[in-house]
Amino acid sequence: MNQNKFNLMESWLREVREKILAWLDEDFTIEEKTGRSDLVTAVDKAVQDFLVAKINTHFPEDAILAEENGMDKTSIVSGAVWVIDPIDGTLNFAVQHDNFAILVAYYLDGTGQFGFVYDVMKNKLFSGGKAFGAKLNGKLIEPVKKRTFSEGLIGINAGMYRRNSHQVADLADQTLGVRVNGSAGLEFCALFEGKLLGYVSRLCPWDYAAGTIIAEQLGFSYSDLDGQPLDYQSWQPFIIFQSSLYPEAITILNSN
Amino acid sequence: MNQNKFNLMESWLREVREKILAWLDEDFTIEEKTGRSDLVTAVDKAVQDFLVAKINTHFPEDAILAEENGMDKTSIVSGAVWVIDPIDGTLNFAVQHDNFAILVAYYLDGTGQFGFVYDVMKNKLFSGGKAFGAKLNGKLIEPVKKRTFSEGLIGINAGMYRRNSHQVADLADQTLGVRVNGSAGLEFCALFEGKLLGYVSRLCPWDYAAGTIIAEQLGFSYSDLDGQPLDYQSWQPFIIFQSSLYPEAITILNSN
Repeated sequence: MNQNKFNLMESWLREVREKILAWLDEDFTIEEKTGRSDLVTAVDKAVQDFLVAKINTHFPEDAILAEENGMDKTSIVSGAVWVIDPIDGTLNFAVQHDNFAILVAYYLDGTGQFGFVYDVMKNKLFSGGKAFGAKLNGKLIEPVKKRTFSEGLIGINAGMYRRNSHQVADLADQTLGVRVNGSAGLEFCALFEGKLLGYVSRLCPWDYAAGTIIAEQLGFSYSDLDGQPLDYQSWQPFIIFQSSLYPEAITILNSN
Repeated sequence: MNQNKFNLMESWLREVREKILAWLDEDFTIEEKTGRSDLVTAVDKAVQDFLVAKINTHFPEDAILAEENGMDKTSIVSGAVWVIDPIDGTLNFAVQHDNFAILVAYYLDGTGQFGFVYDVMKNKLFSGGKAFGAKLNGKLIEPVKKRTFSEGLIGINAGMYRRNSHQVADLADQTLGVRVNGSAGLEFCALFEGKLLGYVSRLCPWDYAAGTIIAEQLGFSYSDLDGQPLDYQSWQPFIIFQSSLYPEAITILNSN
């Protein structure tokens, strides 16, 4: 059953990518949601509507937790639940037409079964789950090589870095440097490919659900900044790091 | 004469890209230059050596200003001078094997004739100059669309942003947000493609020479953070912005 759902979602994602590329060749309406840093586009809703309709048709009993259209209160705790961010990095999407991702996760009674992180413009579809391994465009990828803090970079939320919220800048100072790309999904892609040691931000469940399921297959640990499990309900401080560095990262964040 | 030099350099850049891709498939030595944030690789020197040898063979009277091997003191003021950054974004190159650029500019008696900014992994070769227009992989590109601060993003040096050096964070606050990618060359690529309104950092001449020559063809203005011309000699604070926004950007940086 999971394999069937995995396969169908993979095909729907490939299909909706073609639609996005076509929409990008046209004009589209951009509307403001909660201010200038959170533009959401007509495409954002159209992508969600497409995926929701497919799920409702094929799996009418499954629940959906998603960013748009008031679907943002569903609990993942019981039953079959899809978690969807139709366009992660909407600001990049709106002003760059690049550097955004589609994120989809599937939970059964609170346990992540599989996730998809799709870098749309690069056409890199990462997938993974306990029964699926971790793959890039269908090819297995290896767990990341263990590094020290001084051997890699960290992805970070710019505002948290500037304010040194929860000592995140002190943590960043242990690494070779910070990168900011404006899409949690693309930060996960960089983690999967070994281009970042870790990532710190504030995220909603649909921002981290898919990525964390894949990341578990590749040697990462994640939590809130106190080291506590994520709640999958609200906008929360979020950290993910190579598992060998994660304990020290949490110690640094909580050292004052 | 300029056209001949332009054509030859373009072919050498395509040729050295193939070498880089081959080197990336092998192991290579990474050495530290001035600490953990400035790793420079054997490839960095090999790329410079390749380009310098080509220039010396074909144009033995031309001078060269380049980052490596003690070629960093040449003045661009008189005669024919090539300015080379063999691998811009060496840290990304070293730990990501991605997100770096080759930068080459050509000056005659202090005036930029043409420049190349090459996103190696994406195989995007930007070129331009007064007699050449601005091109991406040989195809003309248009000047960027005029935007307001609240319609776009800014590329920024992470440390300057964190410290609000010279009010750069105040300037960033006028925009939709900041992006940090660790390569001046890739920031220029994003500017050329309209993905950033502007970029603020501290740069050496070989970091900004090629990009600014191309940017002049696309509607950008640049200077140090006081609005004074760059000196093409030392590591300097640097700003480039869409020309319609540049005056106000300079005002914000110098408002206290």
